[in-house]
Amino acid sequence: MRALSMESEPIFQQDWAPRAWNLLSKLRDQSPLVQCITNFVSMDLMANTLLSAGASPAMIHSIEEIPDFTPHAHSICINVGTLSPNWLPAMKAAAKLATKLGKPWVLDPVAAGASGFRLNACLELVGMKPNVIRGNGSEIIALSKASLGVSKGVDSSHESMDAMEAAKSLAKASGAIVAVSGAVDIITDGNRVVGAHNGVPMMQKITATGCAVTALIAAFVAVDPLHALEATASALSIFGIAGELGMDMAKGPASLRMHLIDSLYGIDQAVLLSRAKITTL
Amino acid sequence: MRALSMESEPIFQQDWAPRAWNLLSKLRDQSPLVQCITNFVSMDLMANTLLSAGASPAMIHSIEEIPDFTPHAHSICINVGTLSPNWLPAMKAAAKLATKLGKPWVLDPVAAGASGFRLNACLELVGMKPNVIRGNGSEIIALSKASLGVSKGVDSSHESMDAMEAAKSLAKASGAIVAVSGAVDIITDGNRVVGAHNGVPMMQKITATGCAVTALIAAFVAVDPLHALEATASALSIFGIAGELGMDMAKGPASLRMHLIDSLYGIDQAVLLSRAKITTL
Amino acid sequence: MRALSMESEPIFQQDWAPRAWNLLSKLRDQSPLVQCITNFVSMDLMANTLLSAGASPAMIHSIEEIPDFTPHAHSICINVGTLSPNWLPAMKAAAKLATKLGKPWVLDPVAAGASGFRLNACLELVGMKPNVIRGNGSEIIALSKASLGVSKGVDSSHESMDAMEAAKSLAKASGAIVAVSGAVDIITDGNRVVGAHNGVPMMQKITATGCAVTALIAAFVAVDPLHALEATASALSIFGIAGELGMDMAKGPASLRMHLIDSLYGIDQAVLLSRAKITTL
Repeated sequence: MRALSMESEPIFQQDWAPRAWNLLSKLRDQSPLVQCITNFVSMDLMANTLLSAGASPAMIHSIEEIPDFTPHAHSICINVGTLSPNWLPAMKAAAKLATKLGKPWVLDPVAAGASGFRLNACLELVGMKPNVIRGNGSEIIALSKASLGVSKGVDSSHESMDAMEAAKSLAKASGAIVAVSGAVDIITDGNRVVGAHNGVPMMQKITATGCAVTALIAAFVAVDPLHALEATASALSIFGIAGELGMDMAKGPASLRMHLIDSLYGIDQAVLLSRAKITTL
Repeated sequence: MRALSMESEPIFQQDWAPRAWNLLSKLRDQSPLVQCITNFVSMDLMANTLLSAGASPAMIHSIEEIPDFTPHAHSICINVGTLSPNWLPAMKAAAKLATKLGKPWVLDPVAAGASGFRLNACLELVGMKPNVIRGNGSEIIALSKASLGVSKGVDSSHESMDAMEAAKSLAKASGAIVAVSGAVDIITDGNRVVGAHNGVPMMQKITATGCAVTALIAAFVAVDPLHALEATASALSIFGIAGELGMDMAKGPASLRMHLIDSLYGIDQAVLLSRAKITTL
Repeated sequence: MRALSMESEPIFQQDWAPRAWNLLSKLRDQSPLVQCITNFVSMDLMANTLLSAGASPAMIHSIEEIPDFTPHAHSICINVGTLSPNWLPAMKAAAKLATKLGKPWVLDPVAAGASGFRLNACLELVGMKPNVIRGNGSEIIALSKASLGVSKGVDSSHESMDAMEAAKSLAKASGAIVAVSGAVDIITDGNRVVGAHNGVPMMQKITATGCAVTALIAAFVAVDPLHALEATASALSIFGIAGELGMDMAKGPASLRMHLIDSLYGIDQAVLLSRAKITTL
């Protein structure tokens, strides 16, 4: 996380890693069905991430299918990466139905600040009560400011808003768990703030790794919907560990992508317990 | 195949493997042009599967292009994976034109039972006389029941229909060769039933391997349109062998995906003849 | 290049390789934002190619976002691979705005001759003043003929037009730098003709490598818009070198794809200077 400063080395709480392992084990046992309405770039990596983690992906995006299909999904992942106006109604219909049925859903506000069209779409979706929102620092800051009614560049005090402040503010305003990916991933419900310290910088050189981990969060939240903060932190830490394990074998971004997915598939209890770095900030 | 029980070890007919090799050689020589109207998730793997096998993929889906382009294709692969209403007319136009021109076309009814919209679309396409239909057990059962006018969950005798029964029934009703992917792949024209026994379970942990093998079937049928059952069984066996060869080098689903495609590219006569396991059931 | 005959071994000018290295270094330093309006098949490889080269890809295709977003892009890549009528207005709007703002944009006329719809779309885009057009021989020949008003098969003298002649003619007619991929890549402004002699044949067995190198050209042109010919030749040579380096480790098309991207990420000055083969033809 760019904006995060830590004054001392965090103490990694011993209860987080076993909890993360417990959730991954549940995920592998239950193989939750995760409906993804996502961008074109990420579909392959997202589906393969879910499969390698033990979940069942369903890339079904047509509004015609939502009444029949969404009730069977265990969670929904909505990602606006390659948004166009004809995809938005299905995203909203799925979000609305998920909320009505009490199913968790997760929002990835890709490039939220890239255009007025996109920002408005993200704000509409945030208003439909996602259980989790995950983005990078810029996205969460853009979304947080917009949800506070702050126009870009108008309020200098908000210009200097850092990602943690933005995440907490957005979490309070939306009721969602908000996660900010970065060197340290931040996860907050607006009050509690947790950091997931796993991952390697080269993951940013692979397209759609952010999208993929959002889908993984959806799978984790599906197996523990009542503890979305813990599920989110676990997913981020485990994806980061897969990246660390992959990095040991990688010669560049493309081999890292392969080894990351292989590692996510193969990760076992001993590795997870020794590597998971999750801490209350 | 989940529903398949074999009472004794099948005897692998000696004529199948040379026939499969003959078809693969033809495919590599002729490099048939395979038009794919397929889902967003599978496009990359499908095109790379066709290229590595020696075929020429053309991912052209717009209805405006079908009158000009489809007559140049040697076969067509239609896949409903990420179906939306605006894609269906092109699928139907391509199917209609292919049938009119006597070009083989292959249908992949992905998640046929996931919604009424999707099931109806699949039924319309089945009614347009595909030469081959390939799906997994659930998809073929859903489609077979629906083509018999059996609503989901209504008729208990059909509820217990197994995949082989469903495949035979669908083949008779549609006139298509029907293939069901599973631990043993089943291929039937409604009377004859052939099993292809190659492949490894981890292929199910890679998204779009089913879609990819359907496209490979389209390429094989393009080089031997008069023997669609044999072409289909050969494609399924060869893709399975590529998976077996890949598995020897793989450390997880992502490296299996890579090694599978490499192996499909490199497969030679000796390996194919020693590994192909196709048998009349 | 199929149609190219060289009577003697070209002398590789010593100034091209340092220039290519200089541009790659700039690209890595500046990380230009490249907006890609491209086909579904290529999105993943294109984004990863840009990331591994040091650029920032943005796969934003919706017409609603162009007024807000395109002004922030440093170059635009427009690719008609999976064209449908609803994507064309955004391509034209982005091209028009880019030209108006003086931002370089690059056109990839995939399968230009596959249908009247596609050819007309490509001609419209060519008329909007792309800085660079890159295609294979067939595409450039189809486009060159059409831009001269020559119908397919009508004029026998143009039927025999070879790719270099077509490229020069299209460059003169359009004002664009025209690049033709082949065993030797040709780059021309209509008068000067440069050849880039890097690459390996197996790159043609990987889907979307052509699309990916067009995006790479867009990134190179972004860092040196006033020398589009040199930028284009550098991008083609460097992508080819990445393929050569990848080929040393590859066992087939899928591992080549991975090693190519890894190699593009890791390529250093010594390797580039020793391997770049760019020459005036």
